[in-house]
Amino acid sequence: MPGNTIGKSFRVTTWGESHGAAIGCVIDGCPPGMALGEGDIQPDLERRRSGKSRHTTQRRETDTVRILSGTFEGVTTGTPIHLVIENVDQRPRDYTKIKDVFRPAHADYAYHHKYGLRDYRGGGRSSARETAMRVAAGAVAKKYLRERAGILVRGYLAQLGPLCPVAFDWDEVERNPFFCPDPGAAEEMAQFMDTLRKSGDSIGARVDVVASGVPPGLGEPVFDRLDADLAHALMSINAVKGVEIGAGFRVVEMRGTENRDEITPEGFLGNNAGGVLGGISSGQDVRASIALKPTSSLRLPGRGIDVAGNPVEVVTHGRHDPCVGIRATPIAEAMVAIVLMDHYLRHRGQNADVEPAAPVVPASSVVPPAAD
Amino acid sequence: MPGNTIGKSFRVTTWGESHGAAIGCVIDGCPPGMALGEGDIQPDLERRRSGKSRHTTQRRETDTVRILSGTFEGVTTGTPIHLVIENVDQRPRDYTKIKDVFRPAHADYAYHHKYGLRDYRGGGRSSARETAMRVAAGAVAKKYLRERAGILVRGYLAQLGPLCPVAFDWDEVERNPFFCPDPGAAEEMAQFMDTLRKSGDSIGARVDVVASGVPPGLGEPVFDRLDADLAHALMSINAVKGVEIGAGFRVVEMRGTENRDEITPEGFLGNNAGGVLGGISSGQDVRASIALKPTSSLRLPGRGIDVAGNPVEVVTHGRHDPCVGIRATPIAEAMVAIVLMDHYLRHRGQNADVEPAAPVVPASSVVPPAAD
Amino acid sequence: MPGNTIGKSFRVTTWGESHGAAIGCVIDGCPPGMALGEGDIQPDLERRRSGKSRHTTQRRETDTVRILSGTFEGVTTGTPIHLVIENVDQRPRDYTKIKDVFRPAHADYAYHHKYGLRDYRGGGRSSARETAMRVAAGAVAKKYLRERAGILVRGYLAQLGPLCPVAFDWDEVERNPFFCPDPGAAEEMAQFMDTLRKSGDSIGARVDVVASGVPPGLGEPVFDRLDADLAHALMSINAVKGVEIGAGFRVVEMRGTENRDEITPEGFLGNNAGGVLGGISSGQDVRASIALKPTSSLRLPGRGIDVAGNPVEVVTHGRHDPCVGIRATPIAEAMVAIVLMDHYLRHRGQNADVEPAAPVVPASSVVPPAAD
Amino acid sequence: MPGNTIGKSFRVTTWGESHGAAIGCVIDGCPPGMALGEGDIQPDLERRRSGKSRHTTQRRETDTVRILSGTFEGVTTGTPIHLVIENVDQRPRDYTKIKDVFRPAHADYAYHHKYGLRDYRGGGRSSARETAMRVAAGAVAKKYLRERAGILVRGYLAQLGPLCPVAFDWDEVERNPFFCPDPGAAEEMAQFMDTLRKSGDSIGARVDVVASGVPPGLGEPVFDRLDADLAHALMSINAVKGVEIGAGFRVVEMRGTENRDEITPEGFLGNNAGGVLGGISSGQDVRASIALKPTSSLRLPGRGIDVAGNPVEVVTHGRHDPCVGIRATPIAEAMVAIVLMDHYLRHRGQNADVEPAAPVVPASSVVPPAAD
Repeated sequence: MPGNTIGKSFRVTTWGESHGAAIGCVIDGCPPGMALGEGDIQPDLERRRSGKSRHTTQRRETDTVRILSGTFEGVTTGTPIHLVIENVDQRPRDYTKIKDVFRPAHADYAYHHKYGLRDYRGGGRSSARETAMRVAAGAVAKKYLRERAGILVRGYLAQLGPLCPVAFDWDEVERNPFFCPDPGAAEEMAQFMDTLRKSGDSIGARVDVVASGVPPGLGEPVFDRLDADLAHALMSINAVKGVEIGAGFRVVEMRGTENRDEITPEGFLGNNAGGVLGGISSGQDVRASIALKPTSSLRLPGRGIDVAGNPVEVVTHGRHDPCVGIRATPIAEAMVAIVLMDHYLRHRGQNADVEPAAPVVPASSVVPPAAD
Repeated sequence: MPGNTIGKSFRVTTWGESHGAAIGCVIDGCPPGMALGEGDIQPDLERRRSGKSRHTTQRRETDTVRILSGTFEGVTTGTPIHLVIENVDQRPRDYTKIKDVFRPAHADYAYHHKYGLRDYRGGGRSSARETAMRVAAGAVAKKYLRERAGILVRGYLAQLGPLCPVAFDWDEVERNPFFCPDPGAAEEMAQFMDTLRKSGDSIGARVDVVASGVPPGLGEPVFDRLDADLAHALMSINAVKGVEIGAGFRVVEMRGTENRDEITPEGFLGNNAGGVLGGISSGQDVRASIALKPTSSLRLPGRGIDVAGNPVEVVTHGRHDPCVGIRATPIAEAMVAIVLMDHYLRHRGQNADVEPAAPVVPASSVVPPAAD
Repeated sequence: MPGNTIGKSFRVTTWGESHGAAIGCVIDGCPPGMALGEGDIQPDLERRRSGKSRHTTQRRETDTVRILSGTFEGVTTGTPIHLVIENVDQRPRDYTKIKDVFRPAHADYAYHHKYGLRDYRGGGRSSARETAMRVAAGAVAKKYLRERAGILVRGYLAQLGPLCPVAFDWDEVERNPFFCPDPGAAEEMAQFMDTLRKSGDSIGARVDVVASGVPPGLGEPVFDRLDADLAHALMSINAVKGVEIGAGFRVVEMRGTENRDEITPEGFLGNNAGGVLGGISSGQDVRASIALKPTSSLRLPGRGIDVAGNPVEVVTHGRHDPCVGIRATPIAEAMVAIVLMDHYLRHRGQNADVEPAAPVVPASSVVPPAAD
Repeated sequence: MPGNTIGKSFRVTTWGESHGAAIGCVIDGCPPGMALGEGDIQPDLERRRSGKSRHTTQRRETDTVRILSGTFEGVTTGTPIHLVIENVDQRPRDYTKIKDVFRPAHADYAYHHKYGLRDYRGGGRSSARETAMRVAAGAVAKKYLRERAGILVRGYLAQLGPLCPVAFDWDEVERNPFFCPDPGAAEEMAQFMDTLRKSGDSIGARVDVVASGVPPGLGEPVFDRLDADLAHALMSINAVKGVEIGAGFRVVEMRGTENRDEITPEGFLGNNAGGVLGGISSGQDVRASIALKPTSSLRLPGRGIDVAGNPVEVVTHGRHDPCVGIRATPIAEAMVAIVLMDHYLRHRGQNADVEPAAPVVPASSVVPPAAD
């Protein structure tokens, strides 16, 4: 069974290759009656778009989205929404020389063995270009969550190689090319990237996403827990190798008395749980982190093989991001929004008539986000 | 849409509460013609079973599994396999005092807000008892993978609080109550747990799973990548707060030249990828790690609230594991096996007639497992 | 991908063979807070049960259902409901002589080619015994629909071979062994069946189901239309070879002016549509009909082959229904109820906050049910 | 959960409205390595296209399909195939007068109540225009089935109002505008339609589909039987009110001795089963029939209501088919092909390594197709 659809009640199916004519997605299940135009989607695409600073790939895609169905007179109708972006800066000729080569740490080898052939132009379907449609679909989810459910989904760069933000200011996140909440750290990152780019190497990163205003009750145990579906969605992003909810791997060394977020009528006294208890949202901020590996497309030679099994030296001169984590913040936000939207609708289907059974505790997370 | 089923082609649906009459699962999609009896499942249940050492909960369940359908004359028929385990040591009366209490860091509060009511006996559906059926279903998957696909799925305890194994020996894993690959570390862990238990506190842990013999080609990009589905399955285990594939969060500080696993005709020169490239298995060992939080059921008092919103002091005197990670190894193995089995069948459905297109590189991971 | 689950939001998974230890099902997605006990399910099982009259198979199963999970203190909790019925009158030894035989018009040949082997005892998984669990799950759906949504699902035998009811009285349906709404026709049917049984032959039948009180809005175009999902569910019943919605095949010869159910403020002026417009319920009675083939298990010899491909004469002396349609009414009702329940929850997930946009027309179907 | 996707292993998701910019579909799960170009799809679209004879709507759409993804150098890659057709002859202004009107026997009323609003231009999403994408996706399925599995899917018009073909010639089907296998009957149909068109009325029809070369083993009991999935797919076509497999409703009056298709080493002695036994293909021709209602869009006035609940007289002057059945043959073929393709892959996933267990009986259906 194929895997290009995510979600059960809010379903997103993406299509398209890096150097095909276009990329697109179908969103099925969006509730009717929400105002929606291209202008609601374009800003998030703009945030993800490359070529805005010297720190990202120089491929120049305008990423202009069009809505081809599912709205009428500017309002969603409840029928499938189709979004499309034309590829305008594809240069397939760049890629003929890697046609028969399996580059190290790329999808080439695995795709070739799975399907027996592959579209080698810029990675074809395995290219990070596909994530543009995730951002587009996520923008629709974010809008509904914000307007109808009071849920705000925001992310930031939590680490770039050895560098972490120290100060934390949500407003700052949108002011630098790194989505870094600390202007000082952003400056350091810029210098780090300049040096790195000259060296020809690449670097990993960590991105955090916080969803606030999430009501208690979202998540479908025992398998489709909210945290499990977040892990699925986030790990499905290109280059992601790890996912944490709340305190994540720090729990390994924690004691129970330290880890348990005590509950008082005034609020929770911590958020090590990351807003999820037993796989269901608790009303606290939902917090997730991802680790993104450094790009493997480098001009520093690496060892690979060709389709005949012979050793080859691989040098990449194409246009690539030296740190894919830099543009990953809007993508991670989108995936979190898609999952929350899906669970919002899933929960409502089964439990729309559940009467409030107990008081809701304030979601006063005492832990400041940057320190988490 | 409810969430008690995992898998698309190999589908496992579990049912049952901690203190109900029984727990069970339906496995739909198991290929026909495989010899299967209770004796193939019981050993893994035995590995997970509590009460075998002083380091786990003293609830004494025999966990005797019965196959009620899906086999005929000792062989699978391709129809649904139903497995059932009767609960024999339930003591629901122990739990009436927490009936109206939301314990900190438990699922109580979230379940109550989702469903408006809950089975409070031992956590009801949110109890880790449910994981017994995952182990049972996983044993069926493991058997098929081993016999028909040459895939071996094994796990071990990679960290218990501050303690890590130093030496590594797969045989040792089954010789101590911790699934620890290092006998010396296991001894330290026993002492650590004795001290901890006396203190009344609990501790986190980390478990690693390795699947060897996985052929290249398993995984369904872009959303149902093999790593994404592993993250989903592993994060759905009670108490898990983080999932890593391969180098996991270590990639954040890595450079591309360091991280990329170069390919030579003699094999890959590293396995930072954890056996997954572009969401598809590469033929190397598939490697995943999970972080398990410390149990929140403690006899050391903690702050909670009751259903009316009043503050209460919560003290747990029931039978609980001071480190849920100790018994988590068979559970993590089971989830990895279920995902691999599912993807083995999914891949075959679409690509059964793909001709081998290129030589398969030996899966010679140069990194020893314990150091990874 | 296997096929033993039906429904997306209200999911029913059945397991078990005709002569295994038991049969059962898991219902996932039932809303919480509904009173539910075995006493709510047993009556429908009793309606389907064999051996109550001379017109059905003499296999004597008590069909005693037990709820093993998903309820707490007599109320649904929103977690999976497991229902089980033990098989008490299996006689597997009866079947050894058909072990290597493919009977005409049975599932033997097809199962054998699909799976390479089969449980030949009483048809194994292909036995109509499996439908008991559909009736059990359907009883849960019916109860919710009736109590929470005001929907009533009822069926009746609309034809038995050449015999049709002429009068129509819902109360009469439960008073004769045929679920026939006309006492006179029921008497004729009894005589017809007595003669048929002596002849050793069997006969087909037609069953109609009517769901009243269905609100407008259920159904998910373009593929999961309400009528399409009803067709799927009803055609999945053993022996069913045709499904009609509303006027069904009579529309082939109808003109548009005759067929279109005109709408007035006082109600619809017909129900050729069977309560479904564009795949969505219109608020009128939802009406479906099914055709059931005559049993192929006969004591009159028929030609079959054995597993080696040799011709054999097949004579069936086991216990069988000479008209499977007689007991099909509760099964058909159950499948309609499961589909409506599923769509009730699916619709609510996406559209729970849709404001009533226009007046609802009274569902005054002017056509009397028996004449339809 | 929304419903615009059909299939599990071969998944088709359609999008688009009658008078939007375009319509399209995503096919996910198509096996790689099959040559595919627009030229493989266009001919079936041409067969469904309107405006080719005086007997269909005069809307002139060229229905020119483009493949935007999923192929590389003319061959499928195993990734999602996106097909798109631009709408060129939409005239939305025609429809403003029905903006606030619920026409009898149209989807207007049901859509409005479901979603609270609707795209009223030509029926929006409920328009039969959507079926063009089914035909496009079906052409891909047909090609794979024909080339890789030896399965041929063909349909014909089996009845138009009172008129049935008497002679039967597959070649004739493509020679007249009705897909009628009998040239004499086609001539009668032309006269019938001319008279009907002048009268302003419309008429129903019946279409049969036959799939030959289907191997035994396709279908996933107990719910996703091959016949149940065919019923789902066929009933999801606009205007369909009934589905039959094999002898269909004729079984109601049949005796078991008459209905059972006896098996001999030389072949089956009948095909009342329509090629499906126990929900699994038997190797005989798979045969299905559908009933299509007469169009409700008529220039003869009918009673409807407006959104305020007031009575209105509805007269339709737009471009419509007086018999939707005339163009339904390629659509029905497409839905059958999509289901067979899906089950071909589903079966292979679970049972690819099943050894042939018994000889396959020749599929010599003795019943000539037209008489069935």
